[in-house]
Amino acid sequence: MTSVTSPPECLLKPMVFPQKLMMGPGPSNCPPRVLNACAMPILGHLHPEFTKIMDEVKAGIKYMFQTQNEWTVCVSGTGHAAMEAACCNLLESGENTLVCCNGLWGERFSDMAERNGAVVQKIHKPMGEVFTLGDIEEVCVLSPDLYKNNKHNMPPKHWYIFKPVAHIYNCLLLVDSVAACGGVPMFMDKWEIDALYTGSQKVLSAPPGVSPISFSSRAKSKIQSRKTKVRSWYFDMNELSNYWGCDDGPRRYHHTGPINTVYALREGLARLADESSRLPCVSGVKVPDGVNWKDVSNYAMENYKVEIAGGLGAQAGKIWRIGVMGSNATPDNVKMVLRALGEAIKNVQRQK
Amino acid sequence: MTSVTSPPECLLKPMVFPQKLMMGPGPSNCPPRVLNACAMPILGHLHPEFTKIMDEVKAGIKYMFQTQNEWTVCVSGTGHAAMEAACCNLLESGENTLVCCNGLWGERFSDMAERNGAVVQKIHKPMGEVFTLGDIEEVCVLSPDLYKNNKHNMPPKHWYIFKPVAHIYNCLLLVDSVAACGGVPMFMDKWEIDALYTGSQKVLSAPPGVSPISFSSRAKSKIQSRKTKVRSWYFDMNELSNYWGCDDGPRRYHHTGPINTVYALREGLARLADESSRLPCVSGVKVPDGVNWKDVSNYAMENYKVEIAGGLGAQAGKIWRIGVMGSNATPDNVKMVLRALGEAIKNVQRQK
Repeated sequence: MTSVTSPPECLLKPMVFPQKLMMGPGPSNCPPRVLNACAMPILGHLHPEFTKIMDEVKAGIKYMFQTQNEWTVCVSGTGHAAMEAACCNLLESGENTLVCCNGLWGERFSDMAERNGAVVQKIHKPMGEVFTLGDIEEVCVLSPDLYKNNKHNMPPKHWYIFKPVAHIYNCLLLVDSVAACGGVPMFMDKWEIDALYTGSQKVLSAPPGVSPISFSSRAKSKIQSRKTKVRSWYFDMNELSNYWGCDDGPRRYHHTGPINTVYALREGLARLADESSRLPCVSGVKVPDGVNWKDVSNYAMENYKVEIAGGLGAQAGKIWRIGVMGSNATPDNVKMVLRALGEAIKNVQRQK
Repeated sequence: MTSVTSPPECLLKPMVFPQKLMMGPGPSNCPPRVLNACAMPILGHLHPEFTKIMDEVKAGIKYMFQTQNEWTVCVSGTGHAAMEAACCNLLESGENTLVCCNGLWGERFSDMAERNGAVVQKIHKPMGEVFTLGDIEEVCVLSPDLYKNNKHNMPPKHWYIFKPVAHIYNCLLLVDSVAACGGVPMFMDKWEIDALYTGSQKVLSAPPGVSPISFSSRAKSKIQSRKTKVRSWYFDMNELSNYWGCDDGPRRYHHTGPINTVYALREGLARLADESSRLPCVSGVKVPDGVNWKDVSNYAMENYKVEIAGGLGAQAGKIWRIGVMGSNATPDNVKMVLRALGEAIKNVQRQK
């Protein structure tokens, strides 16, 4: 008889859920309509009722991204999973990638690209500064062996930055819009973006766990003509696109989708379809000299149950990040944050 | 002014959720306690209330797996994501893997291993037959250059099969228990399993989207002494283990976990901690000669809203798979399935 360790005591007590106002860069609060969808009965991952919901989700993403791309699906993971899916599908070993780094995510993408065997070229700007088309074109002109223009018909490279000089130099353009999409204008087709992804837990106010992604026909052709298999089986768009009904064949069982999270995302997208106005959704607020950002954030959480997040990477300690997104984007919430922030700063300064 | 395509009509109507009895090999129905947890308010992915829940989940997985492994966490994806995480963490380019194939998942694991650069050796048996320790040892004896025994101190290889001859030949043992764990005895430490994973939507009766996984100290050492980075950033255990609080350092932001699905998994694990009896959870039922399995499954779904799944791979068309797992494991449900199955078979035979 094999002895069995006892069940853990901590699981015999209920969980506690304080109601917090999530005004950081995400996750944002989920409205009741979205949370209730999570609690709907489970369906099979290939049942017709569920594939209908998947089709509705695809329609919602196409609207959100303003695209007609056939390969518009969800990755069954959170925002970083979509980032990895974009990376591992587009890149093959030995291919060149130009990454424009002005913060943490450029560095992360470079890391992912290297894990996929790509040769990464980085250009840097301090956080808060943006790259102009001129900056990019300069790199292309200085490295004519890597970034030849269209007529030379080089194999495509990949850029992790906004705006398409890319296609002049026969590259593919990859854009991360995890925190912005849905809150700022986004025109994937018009702007000739080749790969675009976002998260569910930001502007869409759905729980994290499933992430919209779309590939242009150029990107699709590149992926379909790869010389090697995508390094990830889970994220392989050749299979994912079939499971999401993007081709004419019957849907094959690739993996079990995160069914209830897909319900919730569908409701988040439906809320977007109901709205017409959009607004910029994460603001950086400079931390005053001599103030410890964390003390202020802690004060706001302790006294107001309001989340105000700090900066990341080079901006750590220098800014707060305040998200006004999804169902949290109301005048009352903004007033509450301003009140908590003002009071917290005064209080922290008084204590010095 | 850029023109905007209209919001999709389909998102302006509500979703429809028929209540189905999910008696296939998963997902199984989620009981109200689990579904309600999904709809609880969102917390930040690093808030102390949430990391406490993560700690409870870890305790629950350790109980379920009967292990004391430090590296016991969840992957933020469904069961196949855990499979990929096990594969890409343990394997490096050029390493040997022995995969015991007696069905679809051995083939899938081989595919994943090859995508990670491994050299795969497969041995085959027909579906329904199992590998004995003698079968494995025979392979080792026939390939002494690959599977030397302990004294020769070869670099570890990986086996995708049950029971540890592995350690005699200085290999690591990887076990997939997506459909079984929690429903059949599982003693990870006693059986010297080096990597074990399962899904949330099977015996635990939670929604899919987060998958328990554990690595032994042997596996941990192997991963920490890799010569190359794990090919996946999202699944890299060196980072995931920190986010899940498995080391003494402060938790770093690696990615946003699927928060609400983690709540639900915690409730699934709590239900397991409440229970004492366990039972085998997926039964294969032979399809009688001359009967089309799909007609029978369709009949059961149309008339009883009961899911009875078909076989996969070599067993496609030959068996039905009936899952009796989690909250569905009641005498009433079994009676219902037997009634639906019996009536369906009669009806299908009558129509011929």
